[in-house]
Order: sequence, then C-alpha cells, then structure tokens
Amino acid sequence: MSLSELLSPVSHVVTAGVAAFADDLGAQGVPVTRVDWRPPPAGTEADLADVALDARRDEANAVAVRRMLAAGAELVDVRPAREMLGLEPGQFLHAGPPIAWERASGPMRGALIGAALFEGLADSPERAESWLGKHDHSGGTGPDLAPCHSRGGVGPMAGVVSPSMWLFEVRDPGSGRTAWCSLNEGLGKVLRYGAFGPEVITRLRWMADVLGPMLQRAVRRAGPVDVKAIIAQMLHMGDEGHNRNRAGTLMLLRELLPALIEGGGDGDGEDPKALADAVRFVSGNDHFFLNLVMPACKLAAGAAAGVPGSTVVTVMARNGTDFGIQTAGTGDRWFTAPAHTPEGLFLAGYGPEDANPDIGDSAITETAGVGGFAMAAAPAIARLVGGTAAGAVATTGLMYEIALAENPAFTVPALDFRGTPTGIDVTRVVRTGVLPQINTGMAGRVAGTGQVGAGLVTPPAECFTQALAALAELARADEANEAN
Amino acid sequence: MSLSELLSPVSHVVTAGVAAFADDLGAQGVPVTRVDWRPPPAGTEADLADVALDARRDEANAVAVRRMLAAGAELVDVRPAREMLGLEPGQFLHAGPPIAWERASGPMRGALIGAALFEGLADSPERAESWLGKHDHSGGTGPDLAPCHSRGGVGPMAGVVSPSMWLFEVRDPGSGRTAWCSLNEGLGKVLRYGAFGPEVITRLRWMADVLGPMLQRAVRRAGPVDVKAIIAQMLHMGDEGHNRNRAGTLMLLRELLPALIEGGGDGDGEDPKALADAVRFVSGNDHFFLNLVMPACKLAAGAAAGVPGSTVVTVMARNGTDFGIQTAGTGDRWFTAPAHTPEGLFLAGYGPEDANPDIGDSAITETAGVGGFAMAAAPAIARLVGGTAAGAVATTGLMYEIALAENPAFTVPALDFRGTPTGIDVTRVVRTGVLPQINTGMAGRVAGTGQVGAGLVTPPAECFTQALAALAELARADEANEAN
Repeated sequence: MSLSELLSPVSHVVTAGVAAFADDLGAQGVPVTRVDWRPPPAGTEADLADVALDARRDEANAVAVRRMLAAGAELVDVRPAREMLGLEPGQFLHAGPPIAWERASGPMRGALIGAALFEGLADSPERAESWLGKHDHSGGTGPDLAPCHSRGGVGPMAGVVSPSMWLFEVRDPGSGRTAWCSLNEGLGKVLRYGAFGPEVITRLRWMADVLGPMLQRAVRRAGPVDVKAIIAQMLHMGDEGHNRNRAGTLMLLRELLPALIEGGGDGDGEDPKALADAVRFVSGNDHFFLNLVMPACKLAAGAAAGVPGSTVVTVMARNGTDFGIQTAGTGDRWFTAPAHTPEGLFLAGYGPEDANPDIGDSAITETAGVGGFAMAAAPAIARLVGGTAAGAVATTGLMYEIALAENPAFTVPALDFRGTPTGIDVTRVVRTGVLPQINTGMAGRVAGTGQVGAGLVTPPAECFTQALAALAELARADEANEAN
Repeated sequence: MSLSELLSPVSHVVTAGVAAFADDLGAQGVPVTRVDWRPPPAGTEADLADVALDARRDEANAVAVRRMLAAGAELVDVRPAREMLGLEPGQFLHAGPPIAWERASGPMRGALIGAALFEGLADSPERAESWLGKHDHSGGTGPDLAPCHSRGGVGPMAGVVSPSMWLFEVRDPGSGRTAWCSLNEGLGKVLRYGAFGPEVITRLRWMADVLGPMLQRAVRRAGPVDVKAIIAQMLHMGDEGHNRNRAGTLMLLRELLPALIEGGGDGDGEDPKALADAVRFVSGNDHFFLNLVMPACKLAAGAAAGVPGSTVVTVMARNGTDFGIQTAGTGDRWFTAPAHTPEGLFLAGYGPEDANPDIGDSAITETAGVGGFAMAAAPAIARLVGGTAAGAVATTGLMYEIALAENPAFTVPALDFRGTPTGIDVTRVVRTGVLPQINTGMAGRVAGTGQVGAGLVTPPAECFTQALAALAELARADEANEAN
C-alpha cells in the first residue's frame, strides 16, 4: 500500500454551522457528523496560513506518518528501573509534562508518597510528604522529578516510576529503538491512581520481588513477543487499547504461558504456587496489557519525532494539572495548558466532584491511533465511559477528520476493516476545532483515594494553538533561511 | 425483567415482495430488511392456522422460552465417554439425526474410520471401512451408530465419539441436568472434519492420555467453571460462539490456569513440559471453547424440550447428509431433509466442489441464540465466512423475526446491548420464509480430507414444514380431546 493510499481523503461529510445543509444530507441518507463550529481561535489565522504554506510540510508529514505506521513493537525484556534507566534513590519519573511538587495534583502527590514509602525513603506518609514537599529530608537531597517521556517511556495515570519498580522494555525491531512502561498494578486502590496505603506498598513489593523476575524469565525464555500483532488482534476483539484491554491481556498471557510454565533456564518450571498467584494476578487484571500498548504506541509516535516542518502530534500526556503535547516539527518542547476533567461514569460512592483533572501518559494510545480513536472497535466501552455504540462509531469517524492516515495494521471490523485514524495533524485540529477524543480512567482528586471512575476527555485547545504558533515561527524562520 | 419484556416486538421493518414500500421506507431512513418473499409452502396454510389457533401455544412457548433463558451451564467434569456414557467398544455416537453407514457422507465415514482405528478395532483404514460398512468384522458384531443428541450430548462436524474419547460434562446448576461434548482437536486435518491419518490418531491418543486427565484434574480442583458467563463475555469480545471462539478459549484458559498449574490433589503441580504442551495446544486452538459453547447451548435448548403445544425449536443438527430438527412440542422426533451445502470462503487449494453438505451438531448454538444469530457481535467473522460488517448486523436483525425472545444474558454491544434473538419459532419460520442463519465450518466431501473452508448455510425449509405438520396434528388431537 502506498503512502498516498494511506493518506485518507475526506470520507464522510462533516458540517459546521450550516444546519440546513446537514439536514438535507441526513435526509438523503448520507452519514453526517455535526461539529460544533467555531472559527479558528483569534490570532491563529496567520499561523495557520504560514504553516499551510510551509513548503516542507507535505513531505515532512508524509515522512512522519510513514515512520509512525512502520514502527513495530516487541516485548524484549522486563527489568527494574534502576537497571534499565539508571534511576537512583530519590529520583522519580512521572506522567505528563514537567511539574514540581507545589503544582502537583492529589493523585500525583499520592503516587509520589507511595513511591517514597516503597523505596524506603520515608517511614510514614506524613514524612514522605514532608520530604517530597519541603526538600528537608535529613541528610539527603530532595526529590528529583522528571517526565517519563523525557526518558523515553510512559506511565499510566500518575505514571510514577522509582528505581525499584520493574518495567516492560519494548523494541521496534526495524530501528532498534526502545520504549518502556511500568507493570500494571490492577484497578481500585493502586499507586498510579494516587493510593499509597499498606496494600499498595505490599503489592508493589510482590511485583518487584516475584512478578517482575518471573516475567523476566518468561520473556527471556520465550523471546520477543510481538506486541503490535496483539494490538491488531485486540481491535478485532472488542478492545480499543486504552480503557479496554481484556482480550489483549489474555493474548499476552497466551504468548508468555508456555515459557512462564517452563520457567528459568533449567526448564524445571516455576514454583506452582507462585506461578498460579502470578497468573491469577495478570489474568484477573483486564488492564495488564495497557502497559504494553502504551510503550508500543510510544515507539510509533516517537518514530515520527524530529521531522522539521511536520505538524504531526508525537506526544499527548497529562500530569493531573497540565496537559502537554509535542509535535514532530518542534522536538521535545512541551505545549501545555490546564488539563480538562473527564466526564463519564463513576464507581459506587463517587461523583464528578471527586474527579481529578485528566492525568497520565496513556493518551499516547490516541496519539498513535488507538484508544479513543479506535472506539468503533469497542462498542462495549459504552458501559464503562458512557455513550452508545453508535456514538463510539461516530467518534472514530470524527477522528479521521484530524488524522493524516489510516493504519493498515490496526483495523476495525465494524468499519469493514478500515484502518484506525492515525497521525494527529495540529493544523487540522486548529482549523476544524475537532479535538482528539481520549478514553481515560479517572483518579480521585484527593491523594490516597485511588480510582473513582472512567470517562471521556479532550485536550485543551490551547496546546494545539501554541504548537501551531511554534510551528509557524519555525516555518517563517525556514522561509527566511531559504530566502537568504 | 418480565417475560413479556423478553418477548420481542417487531423491531424493524421486514418487507416481502412489495418493493415500492421498502423503497419508500429506505428513503425515509427506516432500516429495512428485504426478505425473499414466498407464500407459505403449499399445504402449510391449514397447519399454520391450526397451530396458530392451538389454545396451548402462547403459554407453552412462554414456558419453553423461559426455561431456555433460565438454563445455566457450568463445566463440572472431564471424563472418557466409556465412563460418562457407558459407551462400549464398537459403539459410536455421531452428529445430526440418525444415519447408517450406507447413507453417510465422506467426512462422516472418514471420522468413523478414524475412530475405529483409534479404538483399535481395525489396523488399517481399509479394514476399518470394511468393518464399518459390511458388518463382517471377523468374530465381532458390526458398528452401533447413534446420534449424540440421543445420549444428551453434542459433537461438532462429524461429531463422532468412541469410548476412549474424553468429554466435557456441563451442568445446569438450577435443574441439575447435564450435557456433554467432545474435546476440540484444532483445525485442519482432524477427525471431526473426516481426516483419519496417523497424525489424527496420534493427536487423539495424546488427548486421551495427557490432555483429558490433566483437564479433569484442573476442573476437579478449580470447581465448576461458569461457561454461560464466559459466553456472555465473549459476545462482547468479537466472538459469536460458533465460528469465532477466540476470546472464549482464552477466558476458559484463564479460569482453569491456576488449577492447571497447581495440578492434582497434592498441589505439587503438573509436569512443566506436559503442562506447557497442553497450554500451547489449547491456546493455539481458537475453537477449543466451541466444545463448551455447544453443550451449554444444548442445556439451554434442551430445557425447552417436552412442552406440549410449544413450537420452539430445541435441536438443529446435521449428519452431513440430512439436516434434522426437533421441537419442544414434538419430543425427540426428528424432522429431516437433505442438508444444504454451505457457501463461504475456502482454504487454499479448495473450492465449492470440495465442500460436503452441512454437517455437525454445532447448529445447537444457533438453536440457543448465539452463532449466526449473534453475528452482529462478531463483525470480524466476515473475514472467515464472507460478507460485510453491515451484513452481520443485518443477519442478527433478521433473526429477531423468527425468534420469540431476546436473551438478557447474551447481549450485543454494537446493538447497544440488545439481547440475542433466542427461541426459534417453527410457525414464524414457515410464515415468513426466513430460515435460521448458521455459521459453520466446511468439511471436504471426500473422506480423509479434513476442513476445506467456513461459511454460511440455512436448514432446508422442509424440516420446518414437517415439524409444523406434526405440531398441527398434535394441536388437532388436543382440541379433539378437549372437545370430548
């Protein structure tokens, strides 16, 4: 399939503002998506024009998208962060764009508190909080916080990674590039949702002492596991790869099981009791595979990075306070704005007032064309995030309007195997006002709460207008250079 | 949910014959299914009227459907047929209505040959064929053939069961009734598709010697596995339970894994090598769970049996030569007619001329409202059997026209969790001319070939007109009794 075939033409009619036209089309049976029309935000017209006229843009976007679609993803190892990233005591990685303790939300603070307890940097939540917040840990330095993305990885929700946590290592076999993600803890009271109670720390210890090493033995014995192939299959099995990962988790287990059973080098097998516990943990956690979808998507989106003139989004990430994006043409510069709060369905006992603003690196799934962009593949998601089956199909339909390509590897049976909309174009987002649709979990806004629900959210439009402004400035600079 | 809510109203417009009406509706955006219109077959008008006027019918159908929907299904044991059914050497069970060797199709003969070899009743295919066909086995009696359904079980494709084969035992916890099915061998050259080469017999031996006993230990250790709950889940994961059982197989494995790993009574675990082999076999066979969907559906459909006056279909089954049905109001009497040949997609090297007529007890899935009736849940099935995603949705939509209820336990996300059409009404089939849609595998017509493809098929209409005639006769007899 050639790139020109991948770059999708407008495939159904999007109307903006002119209701009579939409009504006419609807009466004729043409599928119509009504978009809340808004003119490009004030001040963006010149930027839109300059970027549209950037001579590099078409080819740059074609290159970026081609790289994004070509990236593979194989699980090649499972290792502690200490070893894989050289992370040292007191260093923490977190989701989203950079943030300091002072501006961190409840769940981000909760996760950092839990990580400090897990690492033995404090012996109570209060002391952990004091150390994290005031940098007055006796005899030590304060915490060192950096985004997961700055180290080539991703973390769901708070995304907090400390040296003793184990990570999946995923590699693109074509380029040799790698990305990583933490191991999924399950749902409810878990660190990534900001909980830090004793059960959270005990589970993290077991994951570091038992689960991680066991997965390491299995992966090393089994050899690379094709994560991209599992993602392709899960989209045929009702998962969208962000808020539904049920089939993906089972397929990962299927791939690893023989090696898990055969165990380490001697083939004598794991201890049956420990193995049964591990299998219960993994197979009882429908989101276990999310933590492999995410680094696979990081490899894909990251493949598009560093292409001057390209307006393709390469990162969308949230730290619970700010939403940040990066683009192919602007390197690792973040364009941030206050994160929206998701809307959706709540666990018993919680309501909208309990929800923290959007948090997590998991929007990398949408950045690479799955998750909310593949909702049409997962009509059952409506039970989790609200809405209807038709709404899920319409959402994917709408995302084609802001995407540059359709992914031939990730297809949607209900759309007769049309590829998922892939490669978000900043200019399309600003011009149409259509914002990327993200499926997400919702963390409690109070540190220590855990998950309160799941729902839908969009990035703030300002991320895209800022990115557009930066791209326009670079376009003007490039034109000036060419003219000299 | 009350029964009256379950009994579905007409939910979209079915037009028959009057094209202009359908065209008008289509222009107005009303979903329209065009049915090839045919008047009730000659001679059925009086039967339709007599059955429609049967005073028992509404209540009888309500009872039959209520029982069908209420039936549960738990995997409770795995045992050899010798032990579970008291099957003796020389006795064989087979799919579909009764048939003798003389009228048996190629795949049925091939499976019987293989079973005779597997049981050691002959030492070559030629001798097995001679013994099966001529009843001249020196010093012995000839083969004893009976339908699986006559012994309360089901077998896919040829459905041949011999004493040494292991069976799943499934129980309805409410009534205590049980049903059974053989273990699935995988795809390609397998006994149930009529293959009988050395690899087929070797695999059957391993299944009897290793897999069956291992599954028995796991099931006995794990306790009952809720098969109905897995079916409900798989319909949310792209499976329809007949030709797609991928998610179901993985979920079954998930349920059994801890017990499989912990092994027998001492908890010391299975031999890692043997266990890894078994897990590879099960998880590498996307149809393994079909053999649990089938007895679960047998329990549901069988729950409706034996209700005088009910026109609900309780069995649809094919032996490769004849298609046979049974109804709730007519006991275990078969209504048979020559089986159609499926149309669909073929494995490389095969074409329509290689396909045997419809074969197998697997149409019990459609009888209980999944399989072809749940195609809307499995748009990816189009890749296997042909057609489009919209066609899959339309098929399920059409089946509501001949079904008496919607199953609240088996829901279709793409239809906003509408229950699958359940409880085929003989009178609706005859009156509308809409035949049940069956998804199926296709066996090669020559004994020994194996699978040649997968596709779609319907029962012959004559099964339903015969059943209607018998129901009408019983209605008239009942009325005469009442009058006396």
